[in-house]
Amino acid sequence: MSDLHLRNVRPMGGALADILIRDGRIAGIGAPDAPPVVPVEDGGGAIAIPGLVDAHTHLDKTLWGMPWYRNETGADLRAMIDNERTARTRLGLDPHRQSMRHAILLAANGATHIRSHVDIDTDHGLAMLQGVLATREALAGIIDIEIVAFPQSGLLCRPGTLELVDAALRAGADVVGGLDPCGIDRDPKGHLDTVFGLAQRHGKPIDIHLHEAGELGAFSMELIFERTRALGMQGKVAVSHAFFLGMPDWRRTQTLIGTIAELDIRILTVGSPSREVPEIVRLSAAGVKVGAGCDGVRDTWAPGNLPDMIDRARIIAMKNNLRRDDDLAFVLQVCSMGGAAVMNLDGHGLDVGCHADLTLLAGETLAEAVVSPGTPRPLVVKRGRVIARDGAAVVPLP
Amino acid sequence: MSDLHLRNVRPMGGALADILIRDGRIAGIGAPDAPPVVPVEDGGGAIAIPGLVDAHTHLDKTLWGMPWYRNETGADLRAMIDNERTARTRLGLDPHRQSMRHAILLAANGATHIRSHVDIDTDHGLAMLQGVLATREALAGIIDIEIVAFPQSGLLCRPGTLELVDAALRAGADVVGGLDPCGIDRDPKGHLDTVFGLAQRHGKPIDIHLHEAGELGAFSMELIFERTRALGMQGKVAVSHAFFLGMPDWRRTQTLIGTIAELDIRILTVGSPSREVPEIVRLSAAGVKVGAGCDGVRDTWAPGNLPDMIDRARIIAMKNNLRRDDDLAFVLQVCSMGGAAVMNLDGHGLDVGCHADLTLLAGETLAEAVVSPGTPRPLVVKRGRVIARDGAAVVPLP
Repeated sequence: MSDLHLRNVRPMGGALADILIRDGRIAGIGAPDAPPVVPVEDGGGAIAIPGLVDAHTHLDKTLWGMPWYRNETGADLRAMIDNERTARTRLGLDPHRQSMRHAILLAANGATHIRSHVDIDTDHGLAMLQGVLATREALAGIIDIEIVAFPQSGLLCRPGTLELVDAALRAGADVVGGLDPCGIDRDPKGHLDTVFGLAQRHGKPIDIHLHEAGELGAFSMELIFERTRALGMQGKVAVSHAFFLGMPDWRRTQTLIGTIAELDIRILTVGSPSREVPEIVRLSAAGVKVGAGCDGVRDTWAPGNLPDMIDRARIIAMKNNLRRDDDLAFVLQVCSMGGAAVMNLDGHGLDVGCHADLTLLAGETLAEAVVSPGTPRPLVVKRGRVIARDGAAVVPLP
Repeated sequence: MSDLHLRNVRPMGGALADILIRDGRIAGIGAPDAPPVVPVEDGGGAIAIPGLVDAHTHLDKTLWGMPWYRNETGADLRAMIDNERTARTRLGLDPHRQSMRHAILLAANGATHIRSHVDIDTDHGLAMLQGVLATREALAGIIDIEIVAFPQSGLLCRPGTLELVDAALRAGADVVGGLDPCGIDRDPKGHLDTVFGLAQRHGKPIDIHLHEAGELGAFSMELIFERTRALGMQGKVAVSHAFFLGMPDWRRTQTLIGTIAELDIRILTVGSPSREVPEIVRLSAAGVKVGAGCDGVRDTWAPGNLPDMIDRARIIAMKNNLRRDDDLAFVLQVCSMGGAAVMNLDGHGLDVGCHADLTLLAGETLAEAVVSPGTPRPLVVKRGRVIARDGAAVVPLP
């Protein structure tokens, strides 16, 4: 919990101001008429925003820094799942080292919080969880990591997985994961009853990958509605991807979005360019909390994703056809405050009293910052401590 | 026309080799048993590919390096057109300076050829053309620029434009441009008869922006088929964007693609994440020549596009859901040889006898290079002369 006097920054791209930080919280914003605070950092006129939040990634999957992995699998979901499970062993993927690399790169690029899905399966047991838990401990004070126990290979279709997910939730995972109740387990009622049952038993929230498109995804979503309502889990359920919301039937999706808002179910998007995706402006206008993430980074699934929420903001803007300055500023909002809202983070923001988790961005305006992914972040501050400077974190990549 | 001994490169990501260049052409690839050539450059094991080709951009539009432009217009096509035409004057956009910046950045990032649309309209006459012509002359030997006389504001709906396009084709424009025959001029027969008439009169090829989606775009395309066939213009017509090919009716689009291949009409894509786009693998499998481009870069239309064909290759890969190594290598092929084929460039390639226009890429494989847009290109060679090194061109940005 550090003190810091951050001079010459422009909060949200506005007028120059100083930000005074005491004990890891923002103590003042404006002209420095308060008693002097040390140390002092000069922001050089950069934009200051609340720390970026990668609310949907997979820290246990990246191959960053390993020899180039030749992808011969293509884009079939089940094939990618099965390939990855065996590739982990073949490639010798060390989940602690790899999640350290991934999380440090995210921090260097301005993220202060991560929600990471971590695979739990009968081939690898809790090995990935243990690796990411060790990373969470090693990076305490650098970046906060929330862990979703994620049955990537299926929860029911591979017996023994349920018990492992249960063990993961006892061992430190924060959120119950699920995925494609129809597509993967082939038993939507069984899958969702199990996921919600785990959540009830452990008193933890839920985050479900829903790649299912069109009416199949809408059906799974309706089952999620029923359980959220019946169990009083409003505000505790998130759905990632939600590709079904990209289907062209406007009236149908508007009804679904209305229920999502009513039940305070949160939506996480990565703006997948190749898929129909939920429109963030439309969701937000309906009162739905929306966050964003980089998804898996340079892994056996997706070679093209980078560990950088500004890169992701640009992709989400392009996918959503957002060009206006106010729209680009909104994308940045989704990538910081939106993710924080989805994760129920208390005290995230750029107001007095908030945690001093903040990121400086080069550029004249918020919009320019969003479309300049190649420009290093001048400074990243976590609880008042400088944890990255000019694109490099204060801790080395292992 | 230079000599160069390029040592330690991996052509197309394969085994280490030297490339010998004499008089601006590739004289040998392999072990250097030929007489010594000077100067010598060490490629440090980088991948060598044929120079990248940006076959669809707008050199006269970029605001790069100017004060940040606040976009308040949004995504309506006609609104973006009218806004830009007046903004050019208001912002004092100097078409020579701005096209110099844009073209030099493309070259620094590995492009050796550009096809640029250049706006011709009754507000600005040939001013943009003159600016880009001056840039073409200033950058001779650095990057080749082909110019499309582009009636961005409409060809018939704004009287006087046709005469200006005619004058542009006499003044040095290489290609007759057109756009959205239904959507902009509201007279598809009139628009296309005029475009093809100009092409016949000047003996020049055609490149038509076709944003029209679904059956509207398919109808305009059928009119293009009829004229291409009737006038014997096979191999001389390109269609940019071709969003209609993203419509879901597979049989209908397959028939259209068959005719595109039969008439040797070329397709140019920018992989717009927010739109339905033609699938490059499907087009190529049908025998259609496909190239790619960055489109307008940081202009009043699109703040998010960057002057970098590797950045664009990654976007096109993501949009087309391409993940396999061979697919990513194919995207790179589209961004180099594909564009060259669309533009009928002779002697582009990495074979003995080809022009020595080539780009070095960092990375272990072609796939890694595609997904590493932030990594500067180690070396760019134009006709045997080094024109960029480590991401910086040998000529300064004005």
